[in-house]
Amino acid sequence: MNLREVGLRDGLQLEAPIPLAAKLDILDAVAATGVRRVEVTSFVSPAAVPALADAEQLAAELGRWPDLAFSALVAGRGGARRAVAAGMADLEYVISASDGHSLANARRTTDEAVAAVPDIAKLAHDSGGRLEAILAVAWDCPFDGRTAVSRIVDLARRAVDLGADELCFGDTIGTTVPGRVTELLGRVREACPDVELGVHFHNTRGSGLACVLAALQAGITKIDASAGGLGGCPFAPGASGNIATEEVVYLLEESGVDTGVDLGKVLEAAAVVERAVGHELPSNLFRAGGPNRPRGRG
Amino acid sequence: MNLREVGLRDGLQLEAPIPLAAKLDILDAVAATGVRRVEVTSFVSPAAVPALADAEQLAAELGRWPDLAFSALVAGRGGARRAVAAGMADLEYVISASDGHSLANARRTTDEAVAAVPDIAKLAHDSGGRLEAILAVAWDCPFDGRTAVSRIVDLARRAVDLGADELCFGDTIGTTVPGRVTELLGRVREACPDVELGVHFHNTRGSGLACVLAALQAGITKIDASAGGLGGCPFAPGASGNIATEEVVYLLEESGVDTGVDLGKVLEAAAVVERAVGHELPSNLFRAGGPNRPRGRG
Repeated sequence: MNLREVGLRDGLQLEAPIPLAAKLDILDAVAATGVRRVEVTSFVSPAAVPALADAEQLAAELGRWPDLAFSALVAGRGGARRAVAAGMADLEYVISASDGHSLANARRTTDEAVAAVPDIAKLAHDSGGRLEAILAVAWDCPFDGRTAVSRIVDLARRAVDLGADELCFGDTIGTTVPGRVTELLGRVREACPDVELGVHFHNTRGSGLACVLAALQAGITKIDASAGGLGGCPFAPGASGNIATEEVVYLLEESGVDTGVDLGKVLEAAAVVERAVGHELPSNLFRAGGPNRPRGRG
Repeated sequence: MNLREVGLRDGLQLEAPIPLAAKLDILDAVAATGVRRVEVTSFVSPAAVPALADAEQLAAELGRWPDLAFSALVAGRGGARRAVAAGMADLEYVISASDGHSLANARRTTDEAVAAVPDIAKLAHDSGGRLEAILAVAWDCPFDGRTAVSRIVDLARRAVDLGADELCFGDTIGTTVPGRVTELLGRVREACPDVELGVHFHNTRGSGLACVLAALQAGITKIDASAGGLGGCPFAPGASGNIATEEVVYLLEESGVDTGVDLGKVLEAAAVVERAVGHELPSNLFRAGGPNRPRGRG
């Protein structure tokens, strides 16, 4: 098991901006959990994502946590150049698998996004880092409907051929279910047998943890999650967070899978996150008060 | 798939009492969903559970929905007599699998609870109904810790031998995980090969839907759920509901399992429930606004 904490990027991106010091507090709390990979920010337009406008300043502080492996999300060549200039080596590059989402999100087609992979891979590699291609709307697109499995398999193969070192599959709108996870990952595994694969689920419709289990059963161990389930729309708390790190840790540890993560410390980290954003987080486990507090009677 | 709506009993039991008319509105909404089994109330002490003090009055109204199969929960012989006197035929009798929970919840040991099965079975059978034994704290007890699988298997067998027609396994404090579900249900199935089995999960730690899938894969099709995920403590919304009917329906239909339930109608029922209780419900799918509303971007 190889969890990645994504609260500082995917969790915060729609929140009102919080001070840099609050992000450093969150990193201190995350570092104490045993999670070793952190998606720390994205290098995108500060006007589009004001909550992450301090990407350079945050990147400058990361030497404080030598045990953590940080990655940053980029949406194109410009962001990748900013990221490596700021000292980031491991980059995540988002490719929307549907033209509808790609055009809405990044004003380019999927093919145009793929065409940038070699340049971004070179930037990462020249900095001593790796490039992870994140295939967004890997199961469903809010504009174009279902994403064909064959389209994802083709995209995955092309991204790898063009220089991506790893792949991640994003259930961007939180619609997939375990059977579809199994199918897609199995097909990708055949096409890209030697590439590390990861998954990024949202719990929008409640199936997030079931999808994590399906991914594990398919041999995938790189899982994105955020402490407290931070993410989604802050004006509808609970509706659409990332899967919660503590719920993944609970599920896996209770299932006999060693995560290397301290559940109590993740709950402490979620409390730090909740104070930082100033509103309730959606994680059921966090809101229930921890793994052992009795609840329910029937 | 054979869903049972339990919001009117397990969902409401800790809420402030709502008017009888509001319960009838909920039943109208549930009847429109396609769910055909409803746990409608419990016949327990009105002082202990004021929200269900109108059990007799509610039972008197159930002839309005001839297509629904109603059951009522009882905690002992007295409640069973009240239930059949009120016209209920199908009874659910709760047996706490741990002495700690049994003593705290019903002031008797597990064995004392089991001893009442024949009398309660006779009351149900003489009324033309069936008796379902609900084994509470089937996986974990807040007082006694883990419940041994062998203890549940033994209890299940004894309950059946004493007259129970069906069994249901309650994850009372919402702690179990899919692997434990698979193990327990497999063991019970061996011991009671001809008995219908059901499951009752809470989503307290986020694993509820994953457990539903595990139960289905073990051949169990009787699943308890509540519209909107109503249940648990109303003062910590979201922390500990039942699994949400709409999330189960979404998961199963998207997985290719026919539920016979109309997801849109379940969401309408959840809205009726939310208005009746006057606070937000925990279901992620409900709060996201339905199955198709786009959410999330990363």
